[in-house]
Amino acid sequence: MSKNMLIGQSGGPTVAINASLSGAVKKAMTCRQIGEIFGAINGLEGVIKERIINLRNSLKSQKDFVLLSSTPGMALGSCRFKLADKPNETYKKILDVFKKYNIGYFFYIGGNDSMDSVKKLSAYFASLNEDIKVVGIPKTIDNDLKFIDHTPGFGSAAKFIATSISEIACDSSVYDLPSVTIVEIMGRNAGWLTASAALARHEGCNAPQLIYLPEIPFNEEDFLSRVKEIQVAETSVVVAVSEGIRFADGRYVCESICSENFDAFGHKYLCGTGKYLEMLVRKNLGCKVRSIELSVLQRAACYLNSGVDIEEASKVGEAAVRFAVKGQTGIMATIKRVTNHPYLVSYESVDIDKVANFERKVPIEWISKDGCDVTKEMIEYLKPLVLGKQNIVTVDGIPSFFTFDKTLVKN
Amino acid sequence: MSKNMLIGQSGGPTVAINASLSGAVKKAMTCRQIGEIFGAINGLEGVIKERIINLRNSLKSQKDFVLLSSTPGMALGSCRFKLADKPNETYKKILDVFKKYNIGYFFYIGGNDSMDSVKKLSAYFASLNEDIKVVGIPKTIDNDLKFIDHTPGFGSAAKFIATSISEIACDSSVYDLPSVTIVEIMGRNAGWLTASAALARHEGCNAPQLIYLPEIPFNEEDFLSRVKEIQVAETSVVVAVSEGIRFADGRYVCESICSENFDAFGHKYLCGTGKYLEMLVRKNLGCKVRSIELSVLQRAACYLNSGVDIEEASKVGEAAVRFAVKGQTGIMATIKRVTNHPYLVSYESVDIDKVANFERKVPIEWISKDGCDVTKEMIEYLKPLVLGKQNIVTVDGIPSFFTFDKTLVKN
Repeated sequence: MSKNMLIGQSGGPTVAINASLSGAVKKAMTCRQIGEIFGAINGLEGVIKERIINLRNSLKSQKDFVLLSSTPGMALGSCRFKLADKPNETYKKILDVFKKYNIGYFFYIGGNDSMDSVKKLSAYFASLNEDIKVVGIPKTIDNDLKFIDHTPGFGSAAKFIATSISEIACDSSVYDLPSVTIVEIMGRNAGWLTASAALARHEGCNAPQLIYLPEIPFNEEDFLSRVKEIQVAETSVVVAVSEGIRFADGRYVCESICSENFDAFGHKYLCGTGKYLEMLVRKNLGCKVRSIELSVLQRAACYLNSGVDIEEASKVGEAAVRFAVKGQTGIMATIKRVTNHPYLVSYESVDIDKVANFERKVPIEWISKDGCDVTKEMIEYLKPLVLGKQNIVTVDGIPSFFTFDKTLVKN
Repeated sequence: MSKNMLIGQSGGPTVAINASLSGAVKKAMTCRQIGEIFGAINGLEGVIKERIINLRNSLKSQKDFVLLSSTPGMALGSCRFKLADKPNETYKKILDVFKKYNIGYFFYIGGNDSMDSVKKLSAYFASLNEDIKVVGIPKTIDNDLKFIDHTPGFGSAAKFIATSISEIACDSSVYDLPSVTIVEIMGRNAGWLTASAALARHEGCNAPQLIYLPEIPFNEEDFLSRVKEIQVAETSVVVAVSEGIRFADGRYVCESICSENFDAFGHKYLCGTGKYLEMLVRKNLGCKVRSIELSVLQRAACYLNSGVDIEEASKVGEAAVRFAVKGQTGIMATIKRVTNHPYLVSYESVDIDKVANFERKVPIEWISKDGCDVTKEMIEYLKPLVLGKQNIVTVDGIPSFFTFDKTLVKN
């Protein structure tokens, strides 16, 4: 007898997370073990509030799936929700809702915190002998999950970052005077996104000449002397810097220095890492300097999606459904790189206990010895992840996005 | 007997300015009146320093022209250079260089300031009866030149802004809590770029719900009450705001309020307009709020070029050469919109005296009566300018750009 499926999204948005939703739902439609296909609005928060919609009603044609998979943000909505360490009333409420809606398969698309929920719920259901399969579908632009070659969402973000830096490099080299451009990139603790700036380099473009990851302590004097050294030969210097770089004593560059400042309303004003380096260069080198935050476009710029990323996100969603209907639970669907030339991956499963709550940083051996660049191994790793492009649907030249009819299921 | 041609770029970069260079050079190659085709490195500054390269050597194949026309920045380099009001030694130096290189045709691609140089040089040469045609080729993302329907570079910038806002709107609506996102857009005095944010709206997306142009004095109370009003029905509010909005007393929002703050190095810290509105919302409404600067990507994001813009930029470059070889001087090549349905333009010439040093603002009748939106007429005006796309050349998924061999001409 078939049971129903429920899927939700959680954590921060990426360009690829809706592709995973699309892939999972599409696969589920082919599984006789799965009856109704439900979506939770705003993840587990929506489960608790019974904000549940019927996805078969919303996703009716191939066109719908294509539009959904190229839509940034999170079409089902997200939440920041952490289950208590030990089962409590909230666990019980979730179980009640699952029973009410006859849920046999629950999929949660997210990053570290979401995998924590997968771990806790699967263990809880197992402890009660409830036949509810719980499977995680990975996503995060930060690429900081363990036991996965790379996370869906990362490749598109990496492509946006590399492309933007190559464009910014063109822009910042037009005048015949020394200039420094600081580009601040997301990634509080792991430098994967900042590392991808290296892909901007091509014939005739050395930018970014310096790359600073949070894995290596940041030294101001060394930074300034390197900028000066580069300026001997090149007018325009572009620096890619992670928002999360810290000084040797552990203080975040963005926080510790500017905390003396107050904004117009008397609040402490936290300047960004890029802004701080901008001020540092201005004071010490006196040349033209500008800082740029790539902002949320890093995780939202679907126009610069990586075809490889969107396809893999969809396939990892499919794989999760395949694993669940075969009886697996307490796992995350994962991507394994089989070969790099040609680039081939396989979709496997990994025990959720291994994944949840661990953060994967950039290995030190992939950072250059001088601490301000990445190695060839890193470039080789990154290159296939930004290839190709899924066409996005546009109306009059501007992208058009998928939105769900959020009429709740009556039960 | 043929004379040589010299072309330069000046002012700020756009995505389309190299397309104008490409169009002009390509056309020049077909003109028997034109001998050598030279490029000035860094505009008039390069002319004075005799930093002149031979463009026939660099642009050899159709592939070169295509690559050049989709390259952002300014392939010949730019300058910020203003000629004195009355002819002086600098004028004389420029004339000497022109004579040395046997220049009969000078083209200057730029905005307001560059058209001022075209005006002054053409008048100077005419006053000396020197047979040197001087023709301006318009470009500016600001769209603030007079006697042109719209400026090359504007359409691509408008497309980037509208697309980014539609992506940001997806990103900022994922959580089930009230949020305000302020998007700061370029344009100090004219609101054309900010107006183009309106193109982001599509089925299922009302963002940006508020649009503030510099043409209308900004009122804090009115702004806050409008945000509150929208929040009754919508969780996520996106505000598009020009960097150049001012209070009724004429003070720039970005400057007058934050000047009390000092950065970590004791310098006055000028917060941006978006940052100021962010603080204002946080203090008064207490909801989640974020500000985003679209930054130089507005003028550099070739990945989001408008095909119409790139094509027109090229054609206006061609037209300039056509006018010059027919004997016109002291003019700017311009674009006239013939019909909107279908969208058709013609390329004409306009007396440079009419254009130089005038700034075209958004007409008040294209701003909605409540001062925080644009009218249908504005949308109709903008729509055709963002259509189509010129493919850009990529290597391994990342754009590849054209760079000139900057070996100087020996003369």
